[in-house]
Amino acid sequence: MSRHVVIIGGVALGPKAAARYKRLEPGGRVTMVDRAKIISFGGCGIPFFVSGEVSDVAELRSTAFHMIRDEHFFRSTKGVDVRTETEALAIDRNARTVTLRHLPSGREETIAYDKLVLATGSRANRLNVPGSELPGVFSIHSLEAAQDIRNLVTAGGVRRAVIVGAGFIGLEMAVALSDMWGVEVTVLELRDQVLPGVAGTNLARMAQRTMEGKGVSFRLGESLQALEAGPDGRVARVATGSGVLEAQLVIVSVGVRPNSDLARDAGLDVSERGGIRVDEFLRTSDPDILAGGDCVEITNALTGKPFYLPLGSVANRQGRVIGTNLAGGAARFRGAVGSWCVGLFDATASGTGMTLSAARAAGYDAVCVHVTQLDRAHFHPDKRLMSLELVVERSTGRVLGMQGFGQAGDALVGRVNTVAALLSEGPTAGDLAGLEMAYSPPFASAFDILNTLGAAAENVLDGLNRGIQADEFAALWEHRANNGRIFLDCRERADAAELLARHPGQWENIPQGELADRLSELPEDKAVVLVCNTGARAYEALITLVHHGYKNVVSVEGGMAAITAAGFSL
Amino acid sequence: MSRHVVIIGGVALGPKAAARYKRLEPGGRVTMVDRAKIISFGGCGIPFFVSGEVSDVAELRSTAFHMIRDEHFFRSTKGVDVRTETEALAIDRNARTVTLRHLPSGREETIAYDKLVLATGSRANRLNVPGSELPGVFSIHSLEAAQDIRNLVTAGGVRRAVIVGAGFIGLEMAVALSDMWGVEVTVLELRDQVLPGVAGTNLARMAQRTMEGKGVSFRLGESLQALEAGPDGRVARVATGSGVLEAQLVIVSVGVRPNSDLARDAGLDVSERGGIRVDEFLRTSDPDILAGGDCVEITNALTGKPFYLPLGSVANRQGRVIGTNLAGGAARFRGAVGSWCVGLFDATASGTGMTLSAARAAGYDAVCVHVTQLDRAHFHPDKRLMSLELVVERSTGRVLGMQGFGQAGDALVGRVNTVAALLSEGPTAGDLAGLEMAYSPPFASAFDILNTLGAAAENVLDGLNRGIQADEFAALWEHRANNGRIFLDCRERADAAELLARHPGQWENIPQGELADRLSELPEDKAVVLVCNTGARAYEALITLVHHGYKNVVSVEGGMAAITAAGFSL
Repeated sequence: MSRHVVIIGGVALGPKAAARYKRLEPGGRVTMVDRAKIISFGGCGIPFFVSGEVSDVAELRSTAFHMIRDEHFFRSTKGVDVRTETEALAIDRNARTVTLRHLPSGREETIAYDKLVLATGSRANRLNVPGSELPGVFSIHSLEAAQDIRNLVTAGGVRRAVIVGAGFIGLEMAVALSDMWGVEVTVLELRDQVLPGVAGTNLARMAQRTMEGKGVSFRLGESLQALEAGPDGRVARVATGSGVLEAQLVIVSVGVRPNSDLARDAGLDVSERGGIRVDEFLRTSDPDILAGGDCVEITNALTGKPFYLPLGSVANRQGRVIGTNLAGGAARFRGAVGSWCVGLFDATASGTGMTLSAARAAGYDAVCVHVTQLDRAHFHPDKRLMSLELVVERSTGRVLGMQGFGQAGDALVGRVNTVAALLSEGPTAGDLAGLEMAYSPPFASAFDILNTLGAAAENVLDGLNRGIQADEFAALWEHRANNGRIFLDCRERADAAELLARHPGQWENIPQGELADRLSELPEDKAVVLVCNTGARAYEALITLVHHGYKNVVSVEGGMAAITAAGFSL
Repeated sequence: MSRHVVIIGGVALGPKAAARYKRLEPGGRVTMVDRAKIISFGGCGIPFFVSGEVSDVAELRSTAFHMIRDEHFFRSTKGVDVRTETEALAIDRNARTVTLRHLPSGREETIAYDKLVLATGSRANRLNVPGSELPGVFSIHSLEAAQDIRNLVTAGGVRRAVIVGAGFIGLEMAVALSDMWGVEVTVLELRDQVLPGVAGTNLARMAQRTMEGKGVSFRLGESLQALEAGPDGRVARVATGSGVLEAQLVIVSVGVRPNSDLARDAGLDVSERGGIRVDEFLRTSDPDILAGGDCVEITNALTGKPFYLPLGSVANRQGRVIGTNLAGGAARFRGAVGSWCVGLFDATASGTGMTLSAARAAGYDAVCVHVTQLDRAHFHPDKRLMSLELVVERSTGRVLGMQGFGQAGDALVGRVNTVAALLSEGPTAGDLAGLEMAYSPPFASAFDILNTLGAAAENVLDGLNRGIQADEFAALWEHRANNGRIFLDCRERADAAELLARHPGQWENIPQGELADRLSELPEDKAVVLVCNTGARAYEALITLVHHGYKNVVSVEGGMAAITAAGFSL
């Protein structure tokens, strides 16, 4: 059998599908075409090239064993024919042909396929503001742009940069420019938090505060109005809703959209949002045409609804599925729950599934429980604080998502992947409380933070704990003159001393171990806000108060550790 | 309701159960008794105290907020009465009483219980050899022993130490003594590998080689014959099956057994191996007596069979279940698949489920697939090699276990926990190939090593790849004069040059990308062993050869990276 497979698109999914197919059918024939000159590059590595951590741009298109993944590589090692600088103009599904144009020569050609793969990827969203085409304004979508940005920075031409969009790439670029090159970076974001849509507000504040501590500035809830040129015709200023920022470099990172024109023109089923619709075998509405990667819509394995998740990892996994199915297999791609991670200087944010607001928007009666705890045995020298938030459905205890922030990135991502693996099975908070975690003091606590998180959520759902989170605490504290709350620090005296001295009459202290004997000091009819280091003793104190008839008591989840990490100062 | 709960045993499970129960029933009464003077200590931290990483032994019995978990702590913060240095002599199940003896005074007392919890833990196995009671011979089972060992070492009295048993604690103690104190350590192990029963042979070799590189010596497959005293009456020599080792310190770490005498004497159901039998609510054969921790047998969630897993983490999770059930709840403990991790200098070994030999012993027709790959994007500066082995059932592809070794401990343990979370659901190798892993270059590859591992196993099961592992390669290479194999290095010329020069006529080289054009150099009737850096190109080469009719071809899984890491030199 010498089937001819044509693959449109030579980054991530295309090469993976081609190589897999050829391993299964070494006698098959594959032609992979791409508009660009450079194929099969790791676009996710661009921030690390700009930062200088990746020294040569060639590393982003090399194998782990230092071979450049160019046309010659695919021909000799994979048996795949590659045509670069070649655009696919149109698909004739009846004739099973694709018309190609070689861009440098303009020469057109129509080739036949037995199976066609659409791996056309995505396009960066653009800004509809004056000046968005000025020199010095970039989106992060090609190695050429990456090289231009790095050249600009290494030449010393960038004192200040503005990054539009506080998503993954925007934050990674902010780190790259400020950490390695000392550029003064301001991140502009229309919504009122960093990592909008993927992190809860308190974790987002922790991420923001970490970056601010490294010199990055943020303008949240602010819109871009215009980009203005300097005398040299290059971008020089950014006008926002509230002022003007100087900038010799502007990076626009406001998301991507599926590149599905070719599919739509060919009459394939494309969603309103522009994603090519595929079944679980990654077949489009034409069974001879498969598609995957950034150009398709997938199924959210948690909600069963359509979902757009343009990640290189998704594309790679789908590439293997398509390769298998091109060879007559029946491999399935079962969707995704939406796991992510991002390194922010020496900290990491990561998550999976839904945030609280996403869950509520999807119609769930959801609650979010926050835990800040050490990520390994408290006596081990490598211990660090980790913050995790679990989003659970109130009536069933079902876990809908988890997000986290911490210094030990691998440890955080490991917990996220563990929960993600279970997520589509519908685990409950109680399941997490009892989850088996490999234990040794250098890597975990005997009752791991994931167990604590599940237990904490269960305690909240059972009505045993009544937690509030750092931002809710901050709001209560801000209005303390009018809301009649007692703020009760239940740590030992020495730990509470500083705040006691700073806020006489407003901040109280009874160590948790003395509380049962000192209830007379606490009026039973007052509302009490309990605070300790990380929330554990405040929870114990709450149980004591509730047991003695106090009606209006809350504990601060994550305690002073979370309050401080989220950037609230008392 | 003022129920009286009596808990026998004040380490790990006992305190957890007591605290949980009191939170659910603040009006309940709990008495916790323990033979020892010191309760609620983190025994797993002992190696880190001996090493000096934990400076003060008090840290092993403190909370994360530096309060000592002694009798006063449990009384004031948890409302739990504690009696230390108090032995439980007998249970009268009809009368619902326990007879206690206060060891210092010899005073006996019989107290009534409504519910009884057995948290009697385990006892270290002893050696039946002459001299096993000599001064200077220790097992790691109490803080007192830990303090004695550290005193001995800090006083400079230990030049050489022998550790009997190459399990978790034995290896951790070897690290502690040699890394921080420069003691010359020899580890003696009856079986022929380190981490027997939990790691496969090649991973065990990797762990052993790492430790040898740090100066630890191993005597594997060797038995202890006697311990001999020096002129001062302290241990001075260790006689083994093959010689005599000098040692001023001997640590015996040959496992533990359930401490279940009290339960057996009370007529409770106890297994032949000595574990108290409990149901999933952790009730013994007497429903008013619950038990958990090192004294019970649990269910292996993979096989459904009884299982002994004496870990502090299991005890903590069970403690919460018991606490809930003491308060009238119906929490379940669903067993465990047996996850573990251990830090070995700057490397880590970790695993879950069954090894290949355990799976075969359990009657499975199992196969083990090895992958050595970078643990994050190959272009990221933090990348390290990680080795993973997947044990799968041949007929179904079901995953039975995974073990790994690598430098980035959190990253390895995270992968192990991810697989462990799924293990009892019966995932297949293909499920792992498609598993969603949070992706960003600092934390993962776009096709993560877990995805590669699943795909590699699937390829082996499908007959697409025919892999051998490092030790099998080494055996073929050792007998190369007689077995007529062609050893074909399919890396680029420069990579193969050194071995080509060292073994002319025995080591061949055709880069994988040239193989299809150079088949004439390779006699079709010869058996070929394909080797590359990590196995990926050898797999591609194998497909090319099989496609062209070669019948007897194998590729080395993990390639030169695995061969070298496992300590085989060519």
